Amino acid sequence: MKLENYIRDVEDFPKKGILYKDITPLLKSHEASSMALDLFIEKLKNQKIDKVVGIESRGFMFGILLAQKLNAGFVPIRKPGKLPAETLQSTYDLEYGKDTIEIHKDAIQPGEKILLHDDVLATGGTAAAACKLIEELDGEIIQINFLLEIASLNGAKKIDKYPKVSLLNY
Amino acid sequence: MKLENYIRDVEDFPKKGILYKDITPLLKSHEASSMALDLFIEKLKNQKIDKVVGIESRGFMFGILLAQKLNAGFVPIRKPGKLPAETLQSTYDLEYGKDTIEIHKDAIQPGEKILLHDDVLATGGTAAAACKLIEELDGEIIQINFLLEIASLNGAKKIDKYPKVSLLNY
Repeated sequence: MKLENYIRDVEDFPKKGILYKDITPLLKSHEASSMALDLFIEKLKNQKIDKVVGIESRGFMFGILLAQKLNAGFVPIRKPGKLPAETLQSTYDLEYGKDTIEIHKDAIQPGEKILLHDDVLATGGTAAAACKLIEELDGEIIQINFLLEIASLNGAKKIDKYPKVSLLNY
Repeated sequence: MKLENYIRDVEDFPKKGILYKDITPLLKSHEASSMALDLFIEKLKNQKIDKVVGIESRGFMFGILLAQKLNAGFVPIRKPGKLPAETLQSTYDLEYGKDTIEIHKDAIQPGEKILLHDDVLATGGTAAAACKLIEELDGEIIQINFLLEIASLNGAKKIDKYPKVSLLNY
């Protein structure tokens, strides 16, 4: 079984000229999802994790599966206005404009070992902003993992301080 | 351990006068999440499930955990414009205005046994619209489950054709 066979190319989504990598065929297959989960666990090499942080919203999926498998808690990072209690915010640049993400202030205890997960590493702006939030809460980032990475967008450079795993590279 | 101790009340969220039930303390605790997952599995009474359908975005969390545990595939129902391939849409009434959700047309095969999951049953509009989408794809809804139900909003009436489980009632 090859994981890449479960990633579907969709042309011109979300806008003309973009070749979108759709992970829903992978989610739909229990076998492919289990294989991806096992690969993530293997690449973590038995490092202890206290919390898995997943980025809204496709990062919630393998984020919480990883948390369950690692006996860790799960923490969502969300877009502004979605988390109800007191939050920390981080704003970062997009190609055109800016975006903001939030985390609950009580989501991480100082010194906790954190695995950060998102589905795709593209420009790396969101992942870098997420790292900033985790470190402001004094979490220790053990690894950042992604289902897939679009290498041509150079996102890895923005997070090169941290160990990084991408299951698939494009 | 009591699950209700892991649900946090937040006053005046998302707007004045609303007492919001925050599930992030439950997600943050591996023990509480595992307990909720085990309760869901127990209440399914060994019924075979082919696909678990989770509603964006908090329904993704226990939705995919349930899918993994049941050896089933996972299917997201999302807000418009998020799913890249061909979709079916369902529009439903809110207190003020309307809302729309989508599913990929190839997400479910005719006759597949479906578990539908969302985090909260409130007015039931979203859950009923999700059932409509699943049945348009000829999926068979085996059960709908929720972490918690706000009974005073009478959402259960909108989905009373289907077996329903709510772990917590308010």
